[in-house]
Amino acid sequence: MIGSGRGIINEAGKYFDLDRRVMVVTDSGVPEDYAATVVRQSSSGHLHVIPQGEGSKSFPYLERLLSHMLEERFDRHDCVVAVGGGVVGDLAGFAASCYMRGIDFCNVPTTLLSQVDSSIGGKTGIDLCGNKNMVGSFYQPKAVLIDPDTLKTLPAHEMRCGYAEAVKMALTCDSDLFKIFEENGQDSHTDEIITRCLAIKKGVVEKDERESGLRRVLNFGHTIGHGIESVTGLRHGECVALGMIPMCGNDLRKRLVRVLKNLGLETGITCDTDAVYSAILHDKKTDGGLIETVRVDVPGSFRFESVRPGELQELISLIAE
Amino acid sequence: MIGSGRGIINEAGKYFDLDRRVMVVTDSGVPEDYAATVVRQSSSGHLHVIPQGEGSKSFPYLERLLSHMLEERFDRHDCVVAVGGGVVGDLAGFAASCYMRGIDFCNVPTTLLSQVDSSIGGKTGIDLCGNKNMVGSFYQPKAVLIDPDTLKTLPAHEMRCGYAEAVKMALTCDSDLFKIFEENGQDSHTDEIITRCLAIKKGVVEKDERESGLRRVLNFGHTIGHGIESVTGLRHGECVALGMIPMCGNDLRKRLVRVLKNLGLETGITCDTDAVYSAILHDKKTDGGLIETVRVDVPGSFRFESVRPGELQELISLIAE
Repeated sequence: MIGSGRGIINEAGKYFDLDRRVMVVTDSGVPEDYAATVVRQSSSGHLHVIPQGEGSKSFPYLERLLSHMLEERFDRHDCVVAVGGGVVGDLAGFAASCYMRGIDFCNVPTTLLSQVDSSIGGKTGIDLCGNKNMVGSFYQPKAVLIDPDTLKTLPAHEMRCGYAEAVKMALTCDSDLFKIFEENGQDSHTDEIITRCLAIKKGVVEKDERESGLRRVLNFGHTIGHGIESVTGLRHGECVALGMIPMCGNDLRKRLVRVLKNLGLETGITCDTDAVYSAILHDKKTDGGLIETVRVDVPGSFRFESVRPGELQELISLIAE
Repeated sequence: MIGSGRGIINEAGKYFDLDRRVMVVTDSGVPEDYAATVVRQSSSGHLHVIPQGEGSKSFPYLERLLSHMLEERFDRHDCVVAVGGGVVGDLAGFAASCYMRGIDFCNVPTTLLSQVDSSIGGKTGIDLCGNKNMVGSFYQPKAVLIDPDTLKTLPAHEMRCGYAEAVKMALTCDSDLFKIFEENGQDSHTDEIITRCLAIKKGVVEKDERESGLRRVLNFGHTIGHGIESVTGLRHGECVALGMIPMCGNDLRKRLVRVLKNLGLETGITCDTDAVYSAILHDKKTDGGLIETVRVDVPGSFRFESVRPGELQELISLIAE
């Protein structure tokens, strides 16, 4: 089940059985109070803190978490709760999916990015040799509890990154949602943005859990975005924002640039565009074949278009400054 | 699909698509020729050899295998083939289940134990801090290819262990199969034994993939068996053989002992029975509650019976020498 509402974290036990051994996983960047709130509601709560950052999505931290569960004698009726952003959710979800071949998992996302996107859909995983999400599972949480109150403590750049993914969903699937951003209404409509994004993500994932078809629409902006991400030090959401721009029709592109500027996001790159291009080819392992892109001409609609690698260079040039 | 037949390993590519990147996983105790036979049939075959023994079911070997696949640029359309016994199948199956969140897996079991039991059912996993199969997944192989010819090279003690699991299935589910053993016909009826066991295991697992009900019948002999296994240096099959004896009714117990002696298996223990008892309690994490056992009075039938921990001591004493 997916529950959302201000203060819902204080009632987590109403939505997900905490009357058992509960391993609450959080990271050093999340206010301690959030995880503690969940631990307090459990009859046998344990806290597991990982360092903030992508480096925690790795085998050493996975093994450490699983060993902690084993030490506390967790059995197959016990559970894992993630309290934090995407890194915490991905690691904790993967650990839950493979401890004793799978125990209950509850996700309490506390960043906008994870609230509108990564907490829904059942993707878990860790990185391998610098390759993101190379090892993991499809594993649905028993509950996702979204508390917009936790965003009060979120740094501005994290909010921007979350909005970028929300704009992605707006452009491809919900023209009314895009209107909120065009009218600069994001800060007064955060709850509605979250609710609309959840509905979109849920709908797409239910139709295509294993990403063989429709779910690929969620990759809008991600092809070039991932290329920029591996070349620059920019954050994921910032890169997705940039990656969407070339994938819009001419008219819409101007509207999108205005929205992104308004959110405080970059709309052009100064890095080496050839390096971005090479990174994309490496990422996609194309071996010379076509690369699928998602295109949007009118907000709320999209189409898949396969392009030759060379055409990607032209697209990237649209955001070169 | 499950395919069985003498020489089937030479035609693996007919049953499972090998025209792609294929990581063939085997161990140092398996005749090299078996894995090489599969590699040769692939358009892009790679060999990954792990050391023989339970120690390979661990995080370091899992990470090494996954890294090997990444180095060879495996993508989600490529696959893993296990050629060997249970250790190889468990590790390779788990790696296949989590590489890029799951790629195709084919199991080619080459021991009797894995042919009659572990290759079917979709359990994968590794050990953690000395605890068996603590981390893993339920992941069905796309194909299981069983070639009884590979048993020609199997050491006698490995054959005995496989027969022990076959006797387990005979006692609980197939009285005709038990007759083969009572008539000392196992060596002339190996193919039939394998076929019958496959049918039993497949039937049980299909009805209860996640081991919440019926599948627990496959634990017949395993409660006391696991206890003996952790106290002595005996092999899994040898311990299951011992563990079945106290779980049979009086008449059947005598018949079972004759069958096991005939197979060259032990029918009594000289180790400390209190240590066996403690190991069971630790294994089951009972905290004083009841322990479920599987009982057989008439071959081909079984019942579940929950006992107080103390009653287990009496049962163990039935095999003390």
